[in-house]
Amino acid sequence: MPNFTFDAGLLNPLSHGTRESELTSDQTWLQAMVDAELALTRALVDAELAPEWMLAVCDALADASQFDLAAIAVEARGGGNPVIPFVKHLGRAAEKVRAGASDHIHVGATSQDILDTAAMIVARRVTCELIHQLDSLSATLAGLADEHRGTVMSGRTLGQQASPTSFGFVAAGWLDAVLLIVTRLDGIRDTLPVQLGGAVGNLAVITEIAKARRSEAVTAGILDTVLERFAHHTGLVVPRLSWHTNRVVISELASVFAAATGVAGTFALDVSVLSRTEIAEVSERLAPGQGGSSAMPHKRNPVSAVLITAAALQTPGLASTLYGSMLAEDQRPSGAWHAEWQALRVLERLTISAVTGAASLAARLDVDPDRMRANLDLTDGLVFSERVTTILAETVGKTTAFALVERASQEAFVTNRPLQVVLASILIADGCSDALRAQIWAAFDYEGQPGQSAAGIDRVVRSFRQRADASAVSGAGDIVEDATLSTNDVRIS
Amino acid sequence: MPNFTFDAGLLNPLSHGTRESELTSDQTWLQAMVDAELALTRALVDAELAPEWMLAVCDALADASQFDLAAIAVEARGGGNPVIPFVKHLGRAAEKVRAGASDHIHVGATSQDILDTAAMIVARRVTCELIHQLDSLSATLAGLADEHRGTVMSGRTLGQQASPTSFGFVAAGWLDAVLLIVTRLDGIRDTLPVQLGGAVGNLAVITEIAKARRSEAVTAGILDTVLERFAHHTGLVVPRLSWHTNRVVISELASVFAAATGVAGTFALDVSVLSRTEIAEVSERLAPGQGGSSAMPHKRNPVSAVLITAAALQTPGLASTLYGSMLAEDQRPSGAWHAEWQALRVLERLTISAVTGAASLAARLDVDPDRMRANLDLTDGLVFSERVTTILAETVGKTTAFALVERASQEAFVTNRPLQVVLASILIADGCSDALRAQIWAAFDYEGQPGQSAAGIDRVVRSFRQRADASAVSGAGDIVEDATLSTNDVRIS
Amino acid sequence: MPNFTFDAGLLNPLSHGTRESELTSDQTWLQAMVDAELALTRALVDAELAPEWMLAVCDALADASQFDLAAIAVEARGGGNPVIPFVKHLGRAAEKVRAGASDHIHVGATSQDILDTAAMIVARRVTCELIHQLDSLSATLAGLADEHRGTVMSGRTLGQQASPTSFGFVAAGWLDAVLLIVTRLDGIRDTLPVQLGGAVGNLAVITEIAKARRSEAVTAGILDTVLERFAHHTGLVVPRLSWHTNRVVISELASVFAAATGVAGTFALDVSVLSRTEIAEVSERLAPGQGGSSAMPHKRNPVSAVLITAAALQTPGLASTLYGSMLAEDQRPSGAWHAEWQALRVLERLTISAVTGAASLAARLDVDPDRMRANLDLTDGLVFSERVTTILAETVGKTTAFALVERASQEAFVTNRPLQVVLASILIADGCSDALRAQIWAAFDYEGQPGQSAAGIDRVVRSFRQRADASAVSGAGDIVEDATLSTNDVRIS
Amino acid sequence: MPNFTFDAGLLNPLSHGTRESELTSDQTWLQAMVDAELALTRALVDAELAPEWMLAVCDALADASQFDLAAIAVEARGGGNPVIPFVKHLGRAAEKVRAGASDHIHVGATSQDILDTAAMIVARRVTCELIHQLDSLSATLAGLADEHRGTVMSGRTLGQQASPTSFGFVAAGWLDAVLLIVTRLDGIRDTLPVQLGGAVGNLAVITEIAKARRSEAVTAGILDTVLERFAHHTGLVVPRLSWHTNRVVISELASVFAAATGVAGTFALDVSVLSRTEIAEVSERLAPGQGGSSAMPHKRNPVSAVLITAAALQTPGLASTLYGSMLAEDQRPSGAWHAEWQALRVLERLTISAVTGAASLAARLDVDPDRMRANLDLTDGLVFSERVTTILAETVGKTTAFALVERASQEAFVTNRPLQVVLASILIADGCSDALRAQIWAAFDYEGQPGQSAAGIDRVVRSFRQRADASAVSGAGDIVEDATLSTNDVRIS
Repeated sequence: MPNFTFDAGLLNPLSHGTRESELTSDQTWLQAMVDAELALTRALVDAELAPEWMLAVCDALADASQFDLAAIAVEARGGGNPVIPFVKHLGRAAEKVRAGASDHIHVGATSQDILDTAAMIVARRVTCELIHQLDSLSATLAGLADEHRGTVMSGRTLGQQASPTSFGFVAAGWLDAVLLIVTRLDGIRDTLPVQLGGAVGNLAVITEIAKARRSEAVTAGILDTVLERFAHHTGLVVPRLSWHTNRVVISELASVFAAATGVAGTFALDVSVLSRTEIAEVSERLAPGQGGSSAMPHKRNPVSAVLITAAALQTPGLASTLYGSMLAEDQRPSGAWHAEWQALRVLERLTISAVTGAASLAARLDVDPDRMRANLDLTDGLVFSERVTTILAETVGKTTAFALVERASQEAFVTNRPLQVVLASILIADGCSDALRAQIWAAFDYEGQPGQSAAGIDRVVRSFRQRADASAVSGAGDIVEDATLSTNDVRIS
Repeated sequence: MPNFTFDAGLLNPLSHGTRESELTSDQTWLQAMVDAELALTRALVDAELAPEWMLAVCDALADASQFDLAAIAVEARGGGNPVIPFVKHLGRAAEKVRAGASDHIHVGATSQDILDTAAMIVARRVTCELIHQLDSLSATLAGLADEHRGTVMSGRTLGQQASPTSFGFVAAGWLDAVLLIVTRLDGIRDTLPVQLGGAVGNLAVITEIAKARRSEAVTAGILDTVLERFAHHTGLVVPRLSWHTNRVVISELASVFAAATGVAGTFALDVSVLSRTEIAEVSERLAPGQGGSSAMPHKRNPVSAVLITAAALQTPGLASTLYGSMLAEDQRPSGAWHAEWQALRVLERLTISAVTGAASLAARLDVDPDRMRANLDLTDGLVFSERVTTILAETVGKTTAFALVERASQEAFVTNRPLQVVLASILIADGCSDALRAQIWAAFDYEGQPGQSAAGIDRVVRSFRQRADASAVSGAGDIVEDATLSTNDVRIS
Repeated sequence: MPNFTFDAGLLNPLSHGTRESELTSDQTWLQAMVDAELALTRALVDAELAPEWMLAVCDALADASQFDLAAIAVEARGGGNPVIPFVKHLGRAAEKVRAGASDHIHVGATSQDILDTAAMIVARRVTCELIHQLDSLSATLAGLADEHRGTVMSGRTLGQQASPTSFGFVAAGWLDAVLLIVTRLDGIRDTLPVQLGGAVGNLAVITEIAKARRSEAVTAGILDTVLERFAHHTGLVVPRLSWHTNRVVISELASVFAAATGVAGTFALDVSVLSRTEIAEVSERLAPGQGGSSAMPHKRNPVSAVLITAAALQTPGLASTLYGSMLAEDQRPSGAWHAEWQALRVLERLTISAVTGAASLAARLDVDPDRMRANLDLTDGLVFSERVTTILAETVGKTTAFALVERASQEAFVTNRPLQVVLASILIADGCSDALRAQIWAAFDYEGQPGQSAAGIDRVVRSFRQRADASAVSGAGDIVEDATLSTNDVRIS
Repeated sequence: MPNFTFDAGLLNPLSHGTRESELTSDQTWLQAMVDAELALTRALVDAELAPEWMLAVCDALADASQFDLAAIAVEARGGGNPVIPFVKHLGRAAEKVRAGASDHIHVGATSQDILDTAAMIVARRVTCELIHQLDSLSATLAGLADEHRGTVMSGRTLGQQASPTSFGFVAAGWLDAVLLIVTRLDGIRDTLPVQLGGAVGNLAVITEIAKARRSEAVTAGILDTVLERFAHHTGLVVPRLSWHTNRVVISELASVFAAATGVAGTFALDVSVLSRTEIAEVSERLAPGQGGSSAMPHKRNPVSAVLITAAALQTPGLASTLYGSMLAEDQRPSGAWHAEWQALRVLERLTISAVTGAASLAARLDVDPDRMRANLDLTDGLVFSERVTTILAETVGKTTAFALVERASQEAFVTNRPLQVVLASILIADGCSDALRAQIWAAFDYEGQPGQSAAGIDRVVRSFRQRADASAVSGAGDIVEDATLSTNDVRIS
């Protein structure tokens, strides 16, 4: 057996040694496999298809750290998945607890039943953790949106200064995206299904056993009991049908995880841009030892923002692998399923890392309102072109106004003069009224809260508060906690 | 101007010349851009920010075929998107209808407002069409599931015959996946948002205008009116905030479209496999001229299945492009948005083609129950190994039973004898009771409806019926129709 | 038949109406299919397996515009690819030229032979065009590298100003990448293979015919003649074997096209960044009508840079589709091949657009050396931290020097004082020698050509010149021209 | 510090515990980072920019196992990459060996110099291993092609039996693809570049040092020496320029690795298909414990084929991530580089696993010629339709012949009669000559080596032999060995 591990975290600075990485580690997966197998056995006991004394055996087997992860990994090669050797290890351990116990383990299940159920157990915990971190991120962003509703800054489009906006409005935009993701995660968290179908999905074996041990008349009811109790013991739900080759649920997880990373990544990318030396409107507050360079002593790199962006660059490819794996032929496929495992869990790892990183980054964001206002002055008024066009249009019409300001903007750009001044000259030359000229001149002095910034901020922040309040009332926070607890036979030392 | 078109359908056999391709064609996009612009103008009229007479101008401009698609396409290069030249063409046309009319077009909007809103108009129609086609596919699959609940066939895993199942159960599995997708599409259809934010997303221009023409006190209400009426005229909803760089909604469309194609593709892939010359359990009913070869006169290729599979192989890459485009910096990004357009609409085209193709394929599926039963005999009983293990386990325990049947299976395989016979010999040698031997012997004659096939089929078909009934009662079908109508200023000649 | 086209260019501003789009349009593909079929017939004549008079028939059929593209596209659905109906159209046209002529068309070929060969004809032209455009881009970049070898600017890492570099060195970096791509394209251009295998790849039909018409003894030689002449007439080469399911050549095209777009995209992305309002070191020279906004009269968007970046964001997903399509089972696969067509040609379209756009962008690049130097001053000397550390390290050792400058940098940052001044104070306090202090003080005045900029620029520019000279001597330019000619039965009106 | 590892192999049955996984493990990466740093120091000694005694320090530091991998991984978060903490660990260890030694480590380098160079060291070993495994695979496939040149089997297209081919020809097709990949790998193996540019790529620091310690006149020569010796000590080559944001070399590695996995995957997919219970023409020879199921005692799953296919389904998404990462802005980018690390090394891991698995699978392939011939009879002669059409066409012309055989095929299919018989009846009815009828009748008895199978096989096998012979003569095998040795300061216990 090899004494090395493939991935101990060297190339994953964002996630190494963190709870997020732990939540999707091999040890956690092994524990989830244990949880799945024992939940099945417990469900069989509940349905009177296995003896009561198996409950004590289950208790004795519940801690995955007693199993030899490395040995199971090596032996997985023979059968093509880790469940086959794992069931043997589990069976041997069961026999040591009580002779005959192994007969009541993995009954009626196929490997995919266990690995898919384990995947859902892991995915549920990941989902809960993501909601938790996104709620934290939301709270910070709501605070920023509120605080900076009057902090005027330049809106930028295609990399160019465009028109004024406020930093609070920008933060509200980040928050809005986060809230959309949380809503999707809320919807998914409590719908993740167990997998139980047996070799070809139709529960043939458990049906046979139920017929043999009970009576044909009650078989259907017993099957329902097994499924319901299996779901109960795993914290999952009963699906309409086994889903060995119906991977819609995997595609939904892939999509929401990739979207969550995308949302975190967009926020991080904006921070990277706004942190540029020449812009410097925000910066990532760095602890000692963070953001340094191995070559340049002065560097203060926006290191979290960079690593979150890097995570977001990796997720689309992983999501595409999971979409490709939907093409699963037969009752269980020749590769498509096997291709999911690493893609899904690396996607989960990156997503938690990105979202947790974003929550931390938001909490460490220094905002420089003075620099924002200073940058607005860089264009010598060009950034107000849309505003003055709008005002002019009220008098001369939109088309004429646009052409006039376009001409003035070009002259201002070429002659390096303020647009305010150039436009005034033109308006005088054109015989414009004094009142209008005064109005135009005044438009270059921005008083904050451009356009509907305030209303937009209110709308988004209100959504956040409603969710936060609902959580407080219903104890949703506790529910998250409970959800974790209900399945956390996980014992990571 | 060039007199060629890039894509007239030569390399898209599945979709060319069909409604699905039409729904996402350039002409349809241009019409959606017209719809978006005129809906905005109408909303401004509703909010008393534009004169009543503009309604007549809008009516005159409503048909996109009056605009020069090719010229707009060529001119799009200068500004980087088609809206910039389109607004000029639209303005010139408006002036011809009535002088001064162009002043009330594209007021307060940025290019992305119009193109994103057009994209949502297109996406809503695509979603409606997908639901329509998937409902049709569901009805056919529900019929197959019901009809073939007793049609025994071999379940296959990793390409090998595994255990018996029924074709009805297989069809129910396809149906289950389709129903999951329909549920997601139902949820998305009526939540697609308009885009309206102006240059940097904060509606600054319309706010200025409202302040100037009405009074500052009523500005907020007027803005709400504009947004609501804009949504009304486009058949979309009002979002919490403009979403120029918050692309969660695009990611959701990407995910559900890719998943829909994946579901159609899995069905098609199964048909391809089951149609193989050596399996031949199902076949695609071909019209004259379909499924032929340019080289081999005898060929009857499962051509729809192949083309649907091909569509499903293309969608994951397109979805990954859309996920990658979530990384949109600033208030409007330097490339990420532009990268979405083709990816989204080609994804839509492939999805409708795949889903429509699947509905057609299901309706043309010939099932051969005799061949299914004959194939079950190919393994000389090995396919019953799980069943006899289960029965034996009731007496000798699971582990012993598994080992015993494994040994018998290998002997049967090596000696080319039926498992039934080999197992009988072993049981005799082992001193097994006559009763058990008789039970084992009898287990090799399958009477249909293996395991919980019937219950599973019922559960899935019931879900379908509930949806179908609900549609009938609420007139959901009509709703779909109406939804299309409410936005179908589309006039595709 | 529908009277619309899916893609007339509305959503492809970068490529619409350009030679690049034309090179991969449906009409061009149809022409390539004509070229492939007639090249095969001509090869059969050359091998005395078809009558001499067929050459005149071939001449009469050579112009693809005589065929009904739209009809072929519609009919393609029946057989799953456009070759099946195309062969019928071609046969009917041949019969009109001379009765019996259709018997000598598509002899021994399968649909994939024709479409793959057409794909290679298209790919070869695309490759030639890419080399042509990249050579043009290289020449411009070599000029910029040479001209600006002394134009000092700030090097930036992780978005932060890092250390000084020169704009010439940056341009040399762009050029270096371009030259690597050109080298790969040179290697690929003349190795693209014809496809000719018949139904299952073994040339069974032509072998039968050769045996029947000539004699068994010379069959092998005749087959070689057919392949060689087929290659000759198409401008391609003879492969070792037919490659219906061996898609390495497609993967190579995918990789070099995606890499070419990546190289163009990196250049464009750098231009976008350096064009930012707050940086403004380079700008895209815009023609009237370019770079405008539909909302803001002052906008001068780096529109080519943005569109090239957008192209580069779309290519990775398309390349992944082509890599996925390598999984082609049997002698010809059930979908993997069909999934290639659109992905390959859209990839080609985007690649030529991006590369052509980059050549144009480079030629329109305005460089502002004053602004570059001004930006270098923004950090008040921090950007020289690496340099002064290096000088100090000669005296006090690297570790001590790094710590000292790190401390000085932080003090300078916090107190808003120049690093030069802060460092001087510290060195005085530390009792540093006057000579060293003077040397450190002097280090803050940058004289241009940092580090090995000049040597690096020379090395890269020399590589470019060698290629350019070799092309001039060998007439490679003409070869490109000829290469195009040898296959340009293309007649795009 | 956490006591768990993310990936110990549980979800990677194909690669766990194997040399391939070891070649890309974290421990191997750390060793490569050590190799890179020490190679730089040695190069500085060679160029007389560091003292001779550093060579002994380098020797003492050469074994990476003395460094705390987990601690470095945890500390990597602060700076965003593992090199920053690694240099500190290395420096501390150097000081323990000799005071002042740390001053001569990481001189003039930036983090990316070290990590990119380490990546190339790893990539070179991976490339060598791939060539080694592919040579082994080639030898086996060449043997199969040779041995089975007369083993007739049905060629299949779109899942349907098409025309006869030989298994040897199919094997030659697999071999041909493998040889193309080996050729590319050969070309890449000895061109992988070191990375050395310093903070912004222009070697400013080493230039300063050279000027300070030697003389300005010889600076350029010294720089060349440093680069050449650095390349020498790492087994890599000197690039034209530093390539921090020019990722063409990464894209080439991505493309050849993904293509190699694609080639292995296509072979595996064919084995999966041909192993299907109903086809059963080949099977994977399984060792005890391989290919079993956790549910069905009789299962003999083609487990290697499945796992190789699964690997090939994962690589396209990873390659797309690497192509996306080409978009690297500035002198070193904010995320694009960081996104490469895991994608590249997981791609490498999957590629070696897939290729090694394919070599093993080929060596364990059981071929069943009887079953191949039996399957050919399944269509009652339809599989000969192309052949008889060709023969008939010699007399009646191609079009007539095709129509005639198409009609006969449909009749045979509908009436379940052999095509041979049906065709005979039709020909009699049509008054066909006895001689032709006899020829047609005889065509249904296949004598092996269809079409140009033999010639094709010879051509491909000859290519393999030439390479094998060249390797033997030049000692290429030894070169591979040496290549590994020259850089294998790797000490994996």
